[in-house]
Amino acid sequence: MRLKELSERSGVSTATIKYYLRERLLPPGERVSATQAEYGEEHLRRLRLVRALIQVGRVPVATAREVLETAEDESLSQNTRMGAAVWALPHGPEPAEDDPETEEARRQVDALLERLGWTYGQELGDTFPAYGMLVAAIASLARLGYPHETDHLLLHARLAAELAVADLDLVEKYGGSPTERIEAVVALTVLYEPVLLALRRLAETEESGRRFTD
Amino acid sequence: MRLKELSERSGVSTATIKYYLRERLLPPGERVSATQAEYGEEHLRRLRLVRALIQVGRVPVATAREVLETAEDESLSQNTRMGAAVWALPHGPEPAEDDPETEEARRQVDALLERLGWTYGQELGDTFPAYGMLVAAIASLARLGYPHETDHLLLHARLAAELAVADLDLVEKYGGSPTERIEAVVALTVLYEPVLLALRRLAETEESGRRFTD
Repeated sequence: MRLKELSERSGVSTATIKYYLRERLLPPGERVSATQAEYGEEHLRRLRLVRALIQVGRVPVATAREVLETAEDESLSQNTRMGAAVWALPHGPEPAEDDPETEEARRQVDALLERLGWTYGQELGDTFPAYGMLVAAIASLARLGYPHETDHLLLHARLAAELAVADLDLVEKYGGSPTERIEAVVALTVLYEPVLLALRRLAETEESGRRFTD
Repeated sequence: MRLKELSERSGVSTATIKYYLRERLLPPGERVSATQAEYGEEHLRRLRLVRALIQVGRVPVATAREVLETAEDESLSQNTRMGAAVWALPHGPEPAEDDPETEEARRQVDALLERLGWTYGQELGDTFPAYGMLVAAIASLARLGYPHETDHLLLHARLAAELAVADLDLVEKYGGSPTERIEAVVALTVLYEPVLLALRRLAETEESGRRFTD
């Protein structure tokens, strides 16, 4: 298909597609004349993922390029490709250093991962941004004096694992090449975050309404 | 306690506390001389919540003031106080208007809330920001061609409800006045969001590692 059709089918303006091409977020089309190129289904698929990362995940352009290059690098193992993609998502402030709450939170996270048998997170530890994000969040709870018992964290982890199983079932149901599957996992990870937060806020309000009626 | 002790016990600098006092995020202390005021445990508690909202929840100062004033307004019902506080949390872009994906997402959310029996969300609908956030997130999934089946959303909702029950159990266990309970629900809603997202990213990586090994 030509640029115009790619724009119509993706809902992305031709100016934005040209910008993504210049920034190498999209691979170039196949040149058919001096001024025209032909694009395929893989461009359409890639465009969807770029928009998921940039518009919903608020990933900076340079980071998005890195995520996509890693996800598609067939010389790497699928594990590495997948890990590196989730890695690059924005993850808030780094945990503070040399701070008793951070040290305690780190011990708590390590114990939690071991108890869950999450070997990937254990091996990568500190180098994995979601690990640092979790440590920082638990240290905040401790510093502000709010409860952060391991049982309560375990419940969150167990439910997160249940969501991951359902997401991966969905990805496997849709099939596709290894690259397509990795891209789908990244997209679902990003796109379901606001769904989950919104539902949780609704649920918290619902549950408090049920208990705290005057 | 004096300002200096309030600063030491809360870990917030005296300059920041003075700023919060000027911005009416903290009620004034009891004047004991022309230059000194006495602060109580309620100032310490309030200061924790202010930091949770501003530092972790990234709530703007003016919004934080509104959340706190509503949460403490004893002329309102507890339900309203709680709802209004969660209401004010940042919730991303508004859903697009007059757009087929948004209309379809709205129908899907309404059906979901009805099936869940979440009456609060149903009654408030569009005026509740978490509702709009959910509609916008589902419309994004649809627009980008990613799966958003009702069953998958129901699973997320069911798990969110389980978390809400556990959070509220925790709040009830800690006890306190109605105002303290409302404040605790707001703080837990905000502070556990990064915990949940980090655990979900770890779980997604873990589960893909388990399935997609080379």
